[in-house]
Amino acid sequence: LAAGDAVRVARLLEPLHAADIADFLEQIDAGERREILLLTPACFDGEVLTELDESIREDVIEFLPSKFLKEAVRDLESDDVVDLIEDLEDAQQNVILQALDGADRAAVEQSLSYPEYSAGRLMQREVVSAPEHWTVGQAIDFLRAAEYLPEQFYHVTLVDPRMRPVGNVTLGRLMGSPRATLLADIQEDTFRTIPATTEQGDVAYAFNQYHLISAPVVDDDGRLVGMITIDDAMIVLDEEHEEDILLLAGVGEGSLSDRVVETTKQRLPWLAVNLLTAILASLVIAQFEDAIGTVVALAVLMPIVASMGGNAGTQSLTVAVRALATKDLTGSNVWRVIRREALVGVINGVTFALIMAIVGMVWFGSPVLGGVIAVAMVVNLVVAALAGTVIPIIMERVGVDPALASGTFVTTVTDVVGFFAFLGLASAVML
Amino acid sequence: LAAGDAVRVARLLEPLHAADIADFLEQIDAGERREILLLTPACFDGEVLTELDESIREDVIEFLPSKFLKEAVRDLESDDVVDLIEDLEDAQQNVILQALDGADRAAVEQSLSYPEYSAGRLMQREVVSAPEHWTVGQAIDFLRAAEYLPEQFYHVTLVDPRMRPVGNVTLGRLMGSPRATLLADIQEDTFRTIPATTEQGDVAYAFNQYHLISAPVVDDDGRLVGMITIDDAMIVLDEEHEEDILLLAGVGEGSLSDRVVETTKQRLPWLAVNLLTAILASLVIAQFEDAIGTVVALAVLMPIVASMGGNAGTQSLTVAVRALATKDLTGSNVWRVIRREALVGVINGVTFALIMAIVGMVWFGSPVLGGVIAVAMVVNLVVAALAGTVIPIIMERVGVDPALASGTFVTTVTDVVGFFAFLGLASAVML
Repeated sequence: LAAGDAVRVARLLEPLHAADIADFLEQIDAGERREILLLTPACFDGEVLTELDESIREDVIEFLPSKFLKEAVRDLESDDVVDLIEDLEDAQQNVILQALDGADRAAVEQSLSYPEYSAGRLMQREVVSAPEHWTVGQAIDFLRAAEYLPEQFYHVTLVDPRMRPVGNVTLGRLMGSPRATLLADIQEDTFRTIPATTEQGDVAYAFNQYHLISAPVVDDDGRLVGMITIDDAMIVLDEEHEEDILLLAGVGEGSLSDRVVETTKQRLPWLAVNLLTAILASLVIAQFEDAIGTVVALAVLMPIVASMGGNAGTQSLTVAVRALATKDLTGSNVWRVIRREALVGVINGVTFALIMAIVGMVWFGSPVLGGVIAVAMVVNLVVAALAGTVIPIIMERVGVDPALASGTFVTTVTDVVGFFAFLGLASAVML
Repeated sequence: LAAGDAVRVARLLEPLHAADIADFLEQIDAGERREILLLTPACFDGEVLTELDESIREDVIEFLPSKFLKEAVRDLESDDVVDLIEDLEDAQQNVILQALDGADRAAVEQSLSYPEYSAGRLMQREVVSAPEHWTVGQAIDFLRAAEYLPEQFYHVTLVDPRMRPVGNVTLGRLMGSPRATLLADIQEDTFRTIPATTEQGDVAYAFNQYHLISAPVVDDDGRLVGMITIDDAMIVLDEEHEEDILLLAGVGEGSLSDRVVETTKQRLPWLAVNLLTAILASLVIAQFEDAIGTVVALAVLMPIVASMGGNAGTQSLTVAVRALATKDLTGSNVWRVIRREALVGVINGVTFALIMAIVGMVWFGSPVLGGVIAVAMVVNLVVAALAGTVIPIIMERVGVDPALASGTFVTTVTDVVGFFAFLGLASAVML
């Protein structure tokens, strides 16, 4: 197919949504991608570019003839341009900025002046606002006379004389109300402004929590500087979740389209940390070499205690990390949650202690060994529940993302405690 | 505070958003919650009820005087009522259905006839539609004359004479266009209908992928039956992510407000599965009791090999599960992804093999032991990468949620292979 038939390739890509074209480009290999790029550059409009994964996007921008690149960028709204170029290298950024005309470039540059991952980066500059004292009729006439309206807008934002937003009126209410009605009388109950420096995760939280559709963004003085719409908030919510899942698994950022070297670089550090903690656990085992030399069954059973602790700890940890992310775990219920987790740990611990006591006795014919593994199991599952809950809470308090490396800390604790409780108790009782 | 002063409690709750009141109710304990309920039942309107966590919601509905319950429900739109009652027991469902008037009850009952977690459950029945041949002027006059308009709507859906949706016009475009313009000429580029039986996860995916704001829902004959808006899709996206994270960690559904017994019930089965796989790994170790009895260092080092494999496997697994969920991993790139993961496994394997060879030699003064752990490390990390990628892909192919229990399978593989490679090789070489 990609054997030079530009018309046919174009015809195949034409009906696809930009997001699907981007997905398609991500899934084929780099060589094929470049062929298609050079064959049908006009298919790669601005929307496709914004949908592309970062690493692939750089590649495409590099190979796309600059004429087409400029055209692609000119059609975009300011927030999409910001999204497109914020991760690019300086040289590529400049190429794109040059392609914009003066006013657009200034808007993009001002958005870029806000910190990364802030509401200021996320917002579009195109806003529809009206003085708070206007009537429905005035607003409708104003809108119908406007030369330019943003592609996506759902609210008219009411502003006071100093351009500070005071309320939102949905277009639906505007349409459905008599012309003489004051805008202020039909504004929405739920109204929130978002400071431009707000972290994007908090923006997504606010949209999700309060079911916002769009929200005005304000500067330090409370003046309207832009607007964030729910579709952008949804993308952020998706990204934040993705990041949490990957962090919990010990994978930094990363996507399927990264190359082998990049992927290795992302994963190696986490494995290195894990190696250190595994060696720590081994040092604990080494303290009991004599006991293991005498009763080899200890070596056979010890991974069970550690593994159960690790799993139980990960369960508590994940629930705690999610609860912190959704602000369901706060100062006011933290002790109740810890108490509950500990209690669950005791119940699970006793259950599996009984099972393992029987397994130990039947398998190795030693009631003492059964008793030892039972006690170690209870101890480790309770410690796992506590560690899994308390460690992320502490990380949150000291300002570290609780999803980051909590897992390693928790399994280190459960490995060390598991081996120590089991082997230590066995040494004391059986030798 | 909750010492009987209804006015003060009401005054404190008044300014809060429904979602925040719900969060507050979830965080206090059951006794306090009932006191507040009986003190200020009027504060618990329908919105607060829909925001509440399921287990707490049942509790509140049980204790809320029925007069207030009925009032609370009557204000809600049909999709919110469905959301509210679909998880309730039959008796409570009936109480609420009785509170609705005839037409609303019929709408809710019809929504409930769609399968759980389908677009039919998610949609609202209130839709604003217009014949495809209308002009902007006709549509505006129709909207302005309408007695009732849904609280949230962003599009006018164009329908053909048989009520099949053919396009969307945003209210913004409608406002900004001359009265004589045909609606068909200003419809949006991106338009998708959603069959009522679509799984809600796919609905959320479509909204996120194609940046939809609202989409018409159609029945089997393609006729318009309702509408889904992005705020509902965002909630689903959030829930689906939550479910993925919890499943990956071996926690079923579950929230912080569940009681100890429920939480234990959710977590115990997963731990039981883990116990079986841990015993499986122990059986492997038991095959090499003689070797461990002779060289106790093997018992000290073996958890390192298993732990590194488990971690590397979890990394590959998480990336694969996410890629499957976002449809980034498909038939067309599956082999490239597997090849890449294997390669990353080799590189990480060799790196940590070298480190462990040195650690083994220095710690135990045995170059042979160093060599054995190095080889076992390479083998296990490559197997981990393959298992972490292939297992979720297979689960997806056979129609099982890849997030479900993949983790247990993968760590079982890495434990068994890790212990077997290390102890087996050691027995062969060192004894």
